[in-house]
Amino acid sequence: MKTKTRTAGIIIIGNEILSGKTLETNSNFICKEFFKIGVVCEEIRVIKDLKVRIIEVVKEFRNKYNYVFTSGGIGPTHDDITTDAISSALNRKLLLNKDAKERLTNHYSDDVLTKARLKMAYIPEDAVLIDNPVSVAPGYVVENVYVFPGVPKILEIMVKEIVRNLDQGERFFKKTVSTTLSEGIIGEFVESVQAKYNDLEIGSYPYFKKNRFGVSLVIKGRKEEQVKMATEEIFDYIHSTNGQPRIF
Amino acid sequence: MKTKTRTAGIIIIGNEILSGKTLETNSNFICKEFFKIGVVCEEIRVIKDLKVRIIEVVKEFRNKYNYVFTSGGIGPTHDDITTDAISSALNRKLLLNKDAKERLTNHYSDDVLTKARLKMAYIPEDAVLIDNPVSVAPGYVVENVYVFPGVPKILEIMVKEIVRNLDQGERFFKKTVSTTLSEGIIGEFVESVQAKYNDLEIGSYPYFKKNRFGVSLVIKGRKEEQVKMATEEIFDYIHSTNGQPRIF
Repeated sequence: MKTKTRTAGIIIIGNEILSGKTLETNSNFICKEFFKIGVVCEEIRVIKDLKVRIIEVVKEFRNKYNYVFTSGGIGPTHDDITTDAISSALNRKLLLNKDAKERLTNHYSDDVLTKARLKMAYIPEDAVLIDNPVSVAPGYVVENVYVFPGVPKILEIMVKEIVRNLDQGERFFKKTVSTTLSEGIIGEFVESVQAKYNDLEIGSYPYFKKNRFGVSLVIKGRKEEQVKMATEEIFDYIHSTNGQPRIF
Repeated sequence: MKTKTRTAGIIIIGNEILSGKTLETNSNFICKEFFKIGVVCEEIRVIKDLKVRIIEVVKEFRNKYNYVFTSGGIGPTHDDITTDAISSALNRKLLLNKDAKERLTNHYSDDVLTKARLKMAYIPEDAVLIDNPVSVAPGYVVENVYVFPGVPKILEIMVKEIVRNLDQGERFFKKTVSTTLSEGIIGEFVESVQAKYNDLEIGSYPYFKKNRFGVSLVIKGRKEEQVKMATEEIFDYIHSTNGQPRIF
């Protein structure tokens, strides 16, 4: 049986992230949601609010990955140029979307549906809207490109809803073994386990807690039995060297 | 007088970030440090622990940007392949660095300088070490590529030290005006200010606090006087429309 792999790439758009003003957390949220349904996020790119850059990366990603998620740059201001760039990248006209306009009209009384706000109803031709239950202005899907706003509270609600309806990949199984031994001590053994189970992906992640280092070993794979066996081998080894292993 | 621009790109290496396990904060730390010295971070890429991918991105970035900073994958375990990839990308032999080995030997008593740990002393030919005051294993610089570990507490100390000695760009001046008005209301006015001062970069960032939205407008540029003038115009406009502006 062939494993069905679904891949994704995330594009984060915004100068405020590259200047360090904002700690970007949207990609972490999206990656977690992808992980739950077995979609493999291959890459995250954080780029500037620059039309040519957005076009370039959207074009590259849509050919490389099954799903492309973008975050940022779809609000009402002059630096919100994502939608403009995406219509260019996908060669689609920017049209006033009646449904989107209606949502904005219902939400705002006439006098505050400013020109700036109305801009948010212009969407690439034939895009499908993504509901925004918080501030109305919708996201949208065109082909395999999913376009979300940058505000985390809004993005998170929208992403959760969308991800549950994506064509899913085969699930991952995951176990974590933590130890108080350091990577330098267990490294060779873990490498031998990785070599033995090459369908698995074993990650080794040092952490720093209470002034000492420890390591979390994450054993991940599509076959539950393999994950279990490799986890046990690592656990037993660490136990035998007094490394206080814990599984979770 | 021509403005001296220095650009940078950040490469974050690690499957744990792409699976959502770890919230990545190193790039935010590095971006802040760059911003302080006027270096423009053009791009952040988060990629897998995959040798071919690392080689590809390092090659691309070193030609595009003045500084390339990498984070992750230089520890002692099987999934630490950054150094191997960087020597390939830069066509340099991986050699046992005597200084790095000595630091590790001094730090570890003979019996625990395992083969896995010794791996951390193999570094591309002619690389210059970057001190690691926390856990000894050094980072290094080869040409314009600066290689750091992934553990934030270690990376942060190392980056701070390195950045202070980089060839700096011309500084930025920055002001922020916050308002309780939304982007849709102030969008057009801000756009007109941006059009007037096209040397400046004006960013509009909605936030969500105490169940309502507000906006932070960030006015950034290399000329202090221009930043000041544009900030005042925006402040006055918001003030005149009862938007409770605050400058900081």
